[in-house]
Amino acid sequence: MSIEFLILHGPNLNLLGEREPEVYGPLTLDDINDRLSQHAATRQISLRIQQSNHEGVLIDTLHLARNWASGVIINPGAYTHTSIALRDAIASIDLPVVEVHLSNIHAREEFRHRSMLAGVCLGQISGFGWRSYVLGMDALLGHLGRLAE
Amino acid sequence: MSIEFLILHGPNLNLLGEREPEVYGPLTLDDINDRLSQHAATRQISLRIQQSNHEGVLIDTLHLARNWASGVIINPGAYTHTSIALRDAIASIDLPVVEVHLSNIHAREEFRHRSMLAGVCLGQISGFGWRSYVLGMDALLGHLGRLAE
Amino acid sequence: MSIEFLILHGPNLNLLGEREPEVYGPLTLDDINDRLSQHAATRQISLRIQQSNHEGVLIDTLHLARNWASGVIINPGAYTHTSIALRDAIASIDLPVVEVHLSNIHAREEFRHRSMLAGVCLGQISGFGWRSYVLGMDALLGHLGRLAE
Amino acid sequence: MSIEFLILHGPNLNLLGEREPEVYGPLTLDDINDRLSQHAATRQISLRIQQSNHEGVLIDTLHLARNWASGVIINPGAYTHTSIALRDAIASIDLPVVEVHLSNIHAREEFRHRSMLAGVCLGQISGFGWRSYVLGMDALLGHLGRLAE
Amino acid sequence: MSIEFLILHGPNLNLLGEREPEVYGPLTLDDINDRLSQHAATRQISLRIQQSNHEGVLIDTLHLARNWASGVIINPGAYTHTSIALRDAIASIDLPVVEVHLSNIHAREEFRHRSMLAGVCLGQISGFGWRSYVLGMDALLGHLGRLAE
Amino acid sequence: MSIEFLILHGPNLNLLGEREPEVYGPLTLDDINDRLSQHAATRQISLRIQQSNHEGVLIDTLHLARNWASGVIINPGAYTHTSIALRDAIASIDLPVVEVHLSNIHAREEFRHRSMLAGVCLGQISGFGWRSYVLGMDALLGHLGRLAE
Amino acid sequence: MSIEFLILHGPNLNLLGEREPEVYGPLTLDDINDRLSQHAATRQISLRIQQSNHEGVLIDTLHLARNWASGVIINPGAYTHTSIALRDAIASIDLPVVEVHLSNIHAREEFRHRSMLAGVCLGQISGFGWRSYVLGMDALLGHLGRLAE
Amino acid sequence: MSIEFLILHGPNLNLLGEREPEVYGPLTLDDINDRLSQHAATRQISLRIQQSNHEGVLIDTLHLARNWASGVIINPGAYTHTSIALRDAIASIDLPVVEVHLSNIHAREEFRHRSMLAGVCLGQISGFGWRSYVLGMDALLGHLGRLAE
Amino acid sequence: MSIEFLILHGPNLNLLGEREPEVYGPLTLDDINDRLSQHAATRQISLRIQQSNHEGVLIDTLHLARNWASGVIINPGAYTHTSIALRDAIASIDLPVVEVHLSNIHAREEFRHRSMLAGVCLGQISGFGWRSYVLGMDALLGHLGRLAE
Amino acid sequence: MSIEFLILHGPNLNLLGEREPEVYGPLTLDDINDRLSQHAATRQISLRIQQSNHEGVLIDTLHLARNWASGVIINPGAYTHTSIALRDAIASIDLPVVEVHLSNIHAREEFRHRSMLAGVCLGQISGFGWRSYVLGMDALLGHLGRLAE
Amino acid sequence: MSIEFLILHGPNLNLLGEREPEVYGPLTLDDINDRLSQHAATRQISLRIQQSNHEGVLIDTLHLARNWASGVIINPGAYTHTSIALRDAIASIDLPVVEVHLSNIHAREEFRHRSMLAGVCLGQISGFGWRSYVLGMDALLGHLGRLAE
Amino acid sequence: MSIEFLILHGPNLNLLGEREPEVYGPLTLDDINDRLSQHAATRQISLRIQQSNHEGVLIDTLHLARNWASGVIINPGAYTHTSIALRDAIASIDLPVVEVHLSNIHAREEFRHRSMLAGVCLGQISGFGWRSYVLGMDALLGHLGRLAE
Repeated sequence: MSIEFLILHGPNLNLLGEREPEVYGPLTLDDINDRLSQHAATRQISLRIQQSNHEGVLIDTLHLARNWASGVIINPGAYTHTSIALRDAIASIDLPVVEVHLSNIHAREEFRHRSMLAGVCLGQISGFGWRSYVLGMDALLGHLGRLAE
Repeated sequence: MSIEFLILHGPNLNLLGEREPEVYGPLTLDDINDRLSQHAATRQISLRIQQSNHEGVLIDTLHLARNWASGVIINPGAYTHTSIALRDAIASIDLPVVEVHLSNIHAREEFRHRSMLAGVCLGQISGFGWRSYVLGMDALLGHLGRLAE
Repeated sequence: MSIEFLILHGPNLNLLGEREPEVYGPLTLDDINDRLSQHAATRQISLRIQQSNHEGVLIDTLHLARNWASGVIINPGAYTHTSIALRDAIASIDLPVVEVHLSNIHAREEFRHRSMLAGVCLGQISGFGWRSYVLGMDALLGHLGRLAE
Repeated sequence: MSIEFLILHGPNLNLLGEREPEVYGPLTLDDINDRLSQHAATRQISLRIQQSNHEGVLIDTLHLARNWASGVIINPGAYTHTSIALRDAIASIDLPVVEVHLSNIHAREEFRHRSMLAGVCLGQISGFGWRSYVLGMDALLGHLGRLAE
Repeated sequence: MSIEFLILHGPNLNLLGEREPEVYGPLTLDDINDRLSQHAATRQISLRIQQSNHEGVLIDTLHLARNWASGVIINPGAYTHTSIALRDAIASIDLPVVEVHLSNIHAREEFRHRSMLAGVCLGQISGFGWRSYVLGMDALLGHLGRLAE
Repeated sequence: MSIEFLILHGPNLNLLGEREPEVYGPLTLDDINDRLSQHAATRQISLRIQQSNHEGVLIDTLHLARNWASGVIINPGAYTHTSIALRDAIASIDLPVVEVHLSNIHAREEFRHRSMLAGVCLGQISGFGWRSYVLGMDALLGHLGRLAE
Repeated sequence: MSIEFLILHGPNLNLLGEREPEVYGPLTLDDINDRLSQHAATRQISLRIQQSNHEGVLIDTLHLARNWASGVIINPGAYTHTSIALRDAIASIDLPVVEVHLSNIHAREEFRHRSMLAGVCLGQISGFGWRSYVLGMDALLGHLGRLAE
Repeated sequence: MSIEFLILHGPNLNLLGEREPEVYGPLTLDDINDRLSQHAATRQISLRIQQSNHEGVLIDTLHLARNWASGVIINPGAYTHTSIALRDAIASIDLPVVEVHLSNIHAREEFRHRSMLAGVCLGQISGFGWRSYVLGMDALLGHLGRLAE
Repeated sequence: MSIEFLILHGPNLNLLGEREPEVYGPLTLDDINDRLSQHAATRQISLRIQQSNHEGVLIDTLHLARNWASGVIINPGAYTHTSIALRDAIASIDLPVVEVHLSNIHAREEFRHRSMLAGVCLGQISGFGWRSYVLGMDALLGHLGRLAE
Repeated sequence: MSIEFLILHGPNLNLLGEREPEVYGPLTLDDINDRLSQHAATRQISLRIQQSNHEGVLIDTLHLARNWASGVIINPGAYTHTSIALRDAIASIDLPVVEVHLSNIHAREEFRHRSMLAGVCLGQISGFGWRSYVLGMDALLGHLGRLAE
Repeated sequence: MSIEFLILHGPNLNLLGEREPEVYGPLTLDDINDRLSQHAATRQISLRIQQSNHEGVLIDTLHLARNWASGVIINPGAYTHTSIALRDAIASIDLPVVEVHLSNIHAREEFRHRSMLAGVCLGQISGFGWRSYVLGMDALLGHLGRLAE
Repeated sequence: MSIEFLILHGPNLNLLGEREPEVYGPLTLDDINDRLSQHAATRQISLRIQQSNHEGVLIDTLHLARNWASGVIINPGAYTHTSIALRDAIASIDLPVVEVHLSNIHAREEFRHRSMLAGVCLGQISGFGWRSYVLGMDALLGHLGRLAE
């Protein structure tokens, strides 16, 4: 049976490559999406990728994912620290969700240390650049028993 | 003179019946809306009902309600605890607003105890399932002098 | 089967009508009790009504209600914010309790926003004057399956 | 016209002279009451003096004072720091109230620095032993325009 | 010389056996008092036992104990966490007092971790059911040099 | 070379003139925009003006401004105090941004004193009504070296 | 033996009568000083009165008072809440000091509730207008055993 | 009628140009004063400019300004964050006061984010170097209705 | 069947008798251990007693106790307030553990009031000198049903 | 060139499989180490694996790793939340370190949400059972440029 | 080349020998200054010594020291804990500054533990009586490379 | 009589010279120990020097020092901020102890500003590199009356 994952990029991630490259690295979001698709191909996963700056759109997309996805990898950007609504959305859908971050949020400003979301996710991966997403995919596959071991 | 109320459902309430039924009960949002309409009919009120996961849409809807509604019953969901913008929207419109909650927010996680909105509402009703909305309707009618007593 | 509710008024409520009418309204406690009795009559409920300024008396009264009441509507007044003993009393008795407030406590001083009691009650209704009690009665009836719907 | 004041002593003050004399001094409550009566006589005031360890009794006594007293001098003891119900009682009655303390509460444990009551009193006098009450009487007289100046 | 102890049970303990038995165990207060009397008999102690839901009554009882008791075992119930007045009462009487709790208050809600009273007691024993009182008796006897060792 | 600024109005500012005029003044948003355009004309600046109640739309608009604007004057309304996502958006674009407020936020509720955004802006101007925007324009011009001095 | 007191007025008190009369009353500082001198005369006290807006001058004046004064009545104004240096100055001199306030600081902004100074004073009197000083004089006299009783 | 403003520079501003130029810029206080005088001349305002490191002197100067000034522009330096006495001075005088800062205080250390003064000023302007003063002058003129528009 | 208990003394307890005797009493650790052994003998318990200043050794010893002990009495000394690792060790082993303290920790510095460990212990006994251990033994025996009653 | 990693297990992890299996899963530490070795073999990495309950041993081991390791995967257990000394040890060595956790620490008790160490690590992976270590290995390899992509 | 240091004594230090000798010792400020001069003579340093109770004078003196001093030893007294203005003054001058205290501020009241100044000083020396100054001189000399080693 | 001091280096100090040299300087621990020995020789002191990363070893070493040392100079490294056990160890031994730090802890991360130990030490010296130890030696000698003055 084929497996499909949702990759959900939160606010300001559309500016990657341009925005504070000393924090987020030189790759654009398209560069990252390409790498994720390549990795997914080697794992026989198909991906649907979406980015939005709108909290409501992110919630809607999570709701819809109930109908087709086997798991979600979300980089909630700044909403990580403020959105109880996203937390409720994740808790509402019966899907494993992994929270990922490009930068190590624990090494940044105090207000970025706390995640409102991680408590209702499977787990959190933070600090490995675009590889955080790749690790998140493998974490989901492991959770689903789809990794040869 | 006929009375029209706005029923405004906030984020994730579209998933009712599916989302954590041990917290929110087995009814879907359509089930609830039906019951509200029936109750409204017995009170000679007409209702306009809207749900959105978007903070901005909720604000826009409140603004528009100035032109037609006699009162608002809002379940702000998770925005209850974070949205100063919704607070300002309620304070901006010259309408009585009642904040309602399905679950008893005071018996849940610490971060759900505080409401950013209740301070600018007529009052708050929390913990009676779909009946919280019904009680909210009666509260509005009482406030408007439209309840036989 | 007949239903009997306890209406329990906490400290300083005996001064209603005289005390800060701009906050609590012009009605006296007797006025309110009359209205509650009238409403109860339309619902085929009988009421026992008690007021006390003594925390211990309120606790004793709740304990006794185990033997005769089907539910309790309590306005704990200032004890709302300080009394863990009342909280324990409510948790100790196997009765549905609704916390009500005349004024909207969420719109008053910071120290009145937190309720020590609501977490062990069925729910909280705040801000609708004497109607808060009426709504509380209907909430109890709904909870007990005694409202025609 | 004659003036009558209520002197209200709070919890544990019945033990004065015996309880921690290094903090509260060697005088008993009767000793203090004698001195207050003597001072009152020189001012043509009559006093009614009451002590209780019960928060509810203190509230009841304040309520009754509406009917006969021109002012109140209260030493709320430990209830100073915890009782919102006493605060509401003082705010409910239309009488000038002066809060007094034998010891200087600002020089004691951190939890005795804050008064829940002073904000609704005319003022606070703290630290002058039994004379705090005498100063409170003069403060009331001054407020009522009954001191020759 | 004979020794007499006061056993003082605070608010809601009259409901023991009925109230939240998963927290407080199946024994009623009478059951516990019987066991305490039996243990006291083996130690040649006589007991006076009192329960009250009224903070003021507890204070009055402590005051009176100065005249006859050699020590006090108090389970202050919920007043443990809020009552500075009880703290002052204990500090006012020249008697050794042991604070006991049926349940382990350190393993319950955050607001039950702090005791306003323990700081003026001889010590605190928490978590051993009715045996907490028995241990408290032995602790008092040891303190008074009345335990053979 | 011509200069173009973005004027970005945040949530609820569309209700100006109607919403709490004692706080925000009697002018409508159109009135203000007219005055800003007039002032801009005297400075040879062209303006693009946008209002939205949607956090996501404000973020999108800031992103697009990278392509055409020389600077931004933003009144973030209530998002000032809660939105880390807007903060990131401002930090992501390589444009000078000035935060302005009609009312003096430092003289209002405690929760309006802190700005999540000002730390990544050029500066903040608060309290001068519609003139706050005009001062913001001059501040931007000064920063860009376009003010004759 | 004659007794001499220092009356020390802190910052902004020179503006009395002009500054926020709804808070501080209509009397000027000269008016108050006249009344204090009259009262002192009836008590056979002589007064030296000084006002300064300078924290350092207030400290210097307290230091000098060691050489001539029998006691000090200080209204530290806003330095009440911030000045550890004044606290140290009061603790350094071997004189009884009474802290007084015209307005009831416990009924004003939160940041005016805490006194850095009261803990090293004899006591605090707050809320009785210019009479707070008069009461302070009597409190000092009582403390010095100079009041006939 | 001619208009005269007070420009009041607080502690350490006399070192401008020398002190941490990476924070405060290369201009000396004389350089800045020259520019302010030039700008004032174009507006037909006359300025009186004063700098002091003494909190008391700043207070005295504000008091005197009641007699001659139409408005005040104050850069309170570090006293911004600690001085309730300056706050009271500003509140005491019946003059419009604008608080200005060279650097963006909201982008600096946490303890510089809070202003004790802004709440009693007309508004605050922060982050535009010496232009903050110029903008403050225009803000005052606008407030006084002296700007052609 | 014979019963064996682990008595575990934490950091600095090896200095007993020498260290701050006004706080901890004049007995040495050997003195205390002798008394515990005597008491144990009267109860037919055998004891293994260990002291260490090393957090890791305390953890290792708890782990090993799984293999032989029926219960543990631990005085964790200063680690009481800081060690989550000890907490986890206690939670990891399937043994009843009683936390004891020589002094009344609730009457000492604020930072000694909170226990990181008590929440995962059977209970806590604090303030009775070496008898705290004896009471702990009896508490364990009672818990194990080995006390004749 | 061959690559060697240090796998460092912190306190209480030696009890895995026995300790709270509902939190940490049924695998023993040996089971986990076997799986890590297998995964390492497929990646051509050699591992050195160590567990200790001693904070000092963990620090010593990190220091020694400077001489031979290319990277470190550490599960600091409870020291995660308390040990500044471990934080300094990680910051002291010039090696990439990944912090991993079996359980999702963000979904557990409040005091387990904050990591003192993550801020000086490359990143943190939390919540995927023994796979957290595997993901950590891949994260290190990616960081070292040793993953084919 | 000769070296000149500024010794700056803050508020209340002029009272040394008289003020709380149990805290500050029996020496007067002149005694201490003599000892400092003697020590300075053995080090070939000349000293300028100044004391002031005025925050502004301390700031002015620091500013002037830029022109002649090689280093500063400051005992800021109570301003240590409150003065951001002194902090800014120290940061503004390009001189090494050592903060010293007679008493061990870390062993006194909680509000004396935090220094607003130490963060911009070379270092802090606290608790060695007048020798704290001597140690400060040696610390400055060491920093300037003027100590034979 | 000869004098012997214990120099006790805490965790991670064995890495000096290698670890973050921009914070701690280029000297190794051996370099520093050499300098300390040289300085000690000029003072006729003998030193015993020890370093450990183990909290328990540091405690043991302090205990043993009771038998031979005249004083202790301790750099507790990161344990400064977390170890109540070390605090108790210092308080337990009857020896003067000086806390020293290479870097200025007051100028580093917030969590390094507070010392759990300094309150029970003679004093604290922070910020002068290896000279902090030298100053500590002189401080001890001064305290012991062994410095010629």
